[in-house]
Amino acid sequence: MSGPKSNGWLKVVGLGPGPEDWLTPEARRDLAEATDLVGYFPYVERVPPGDQVRHASDNRVELDRARFALDLAAQGRRVAVVSGGDPGIFAMAAAIFEALDDPDAPKAWRAVHLSVDPGVSAMQAAAARAGAPLGHDFCAISLSDNLKPWEVVLRRLRLAAEADFVIALYNPISKARPWQLGAAFDALRDIRAPETPIVLGRAIGRPDEELTVTTLGEVRAEQADMRTLVIIGASHTRLVARADGGRWVYTPRHYRG
Amino acid sequence: MSGPKSNGWLKVVGLGPGPEDWLTPEARRDLAEATDLVGYFPYVERVPPGDQVRHASDNRVELDRARFALDLAAQGRRVAVVSGGDPGIFAMAAAIFEALDDPDAPKAWRAVHLSVDPGVSAMQAAAARAGAPLGHDFCAISLSDNLKPWEVVLRRLRLAAEADFVIALYNPISKARPWQLGAAFDALRDIRAPETPIVLGRAIGRPDEELTVTTLGEVRAEQADMRTLVIIGASHTRLVARADGGRWVYTPRHYRG
Repeated sequence: MSGPKSNGWLKVVGLGPGPEDWLTPEARRDLAEATDLVGYFPYVERVPPGDQVRHASDNRVELDRARFALDLAAQGRRVAVVSGGDPGIFAMAAAIFEALDDPDAPKAWRAVHLSVDPGVSAMQAAAARAGAPLGHDFCAISLSDNLKPWEVVLRRLRLAAEADFVIALYNPISKARPWQLGAAFDALRDIRAPETPIVLGRAIGRPDEELTVTTLGEVRAEQADMRTLVIIGASHTRLVARADGGRWVYTPRHYRG
Repeated sequence: MSGPKSNGWLKVVGLGPGPEDWLTPEARRDLAEATDLVGYFPYVERVPPGDQVRHASDNRVELDRARFALDLAAQGRRVAVVSGGDPGIFAMAAAIFEALDDPDAPKAWRAVHLSVDPGVSAMQAAAARAGAPLGHDFCAISLSDNLKPWEVVLRRLRLAAEADFVIALYNPISKARPWQLGAAFDALRDIRAPETPIVLGRAIGRPDEELTVTTLGEVRAEQADMRTLVIIGASHTRLVARADGGRWVYTPRHYRG
């Protein structure tokens, strides 16, 4: 082909946390109109059946995947880069712009019609099942130290606790990162009370979803896995009895400090 | 009626930022199955036409609205409490649990079948239009000092800037709170560089949406109104040229500190 075709596009599409019930109509339409699906294989598998060419790749090759997708779109293909949750939150959208921002990036990439479809992110799904833990000021931190030094993670956790934010932790633990979540809980125990509510939302929205409500004093890192989203309450986050005997977790809108 | 009916329910439903294109299938179904819609009037008006009884109320009466909705559900009605964006993020879900948590709350409220439908929040819509500014660790702060002291807001802003979070500001400005956003920008200018990218996403998803990309050095509070979501970049947030001459804003996943 002799240059970019104007009918090609690249859309970074958020699939939400899993069920089609949380897939927006915009995302569904863009997936259906795509000629090519590009993404981490479990996300590509999750896209409803269709005629699209499926380019599934492994984890941790986000930048290669972004370049491949930009190339396809520059050739005139309609490319949906699929991401779990919201592609703008710890997901593929940033990788696409990193590829585009490379000084050596082909000029044709800049001409690609590019857009991002937001979606429901994992913290929102976990929060909805738990009650309303994100009802007041909060922060979201990726606990992975693959892309930033662990000292930065620890410093952010401490400042977030000092600021009395509710804290949502993405990527809390994996086989390659077994000790970081325990270290994070320990750091927070220096600042927050043992009664602080903790939500562990595992695979929320999937058939095997599990919700655990516990406290900072009692939680153990082994209760989480790589499919878990962790929410740590602020000082005024509260528990309320559920009709079924469990407990809701919510953070009041009011704050007296 | 002589007590709670088991067929009643209360669902706190997120409408997303505006267009039906961002309304999840779950939310659409729950709205259609409700007998009663309860909410701030612009949100109730936004619900697709149907037979539901519409109970629209004014702003700033969230707790009264929550009690009214719990009463209706305890009487056996199917009640959708509607909220813009995600009801769990600076919206109605926390107010429902506050009402339920009142020691004087009627016992019948505890028996109500209660759930929360997550939705796309304003920061995600603004981020998607701007690129990927929330691609790294971030926080969300409501700038309103109606529900917390201004000193708490300022302290959180300073700690968030020290932690080098991307910062999303909800409720940045209103007629009753005209100076707070300017004061927030001033506080951040003490810590962050003037080149720090700023996104102003006004009514994103609505027909009159407007996206402004500027910098901390240049932004003025008067550029925002009560329908604006403000995003302030971290130290490594970057700008990339768009095909149309504008600029994308994104925050790389990598961070060197």
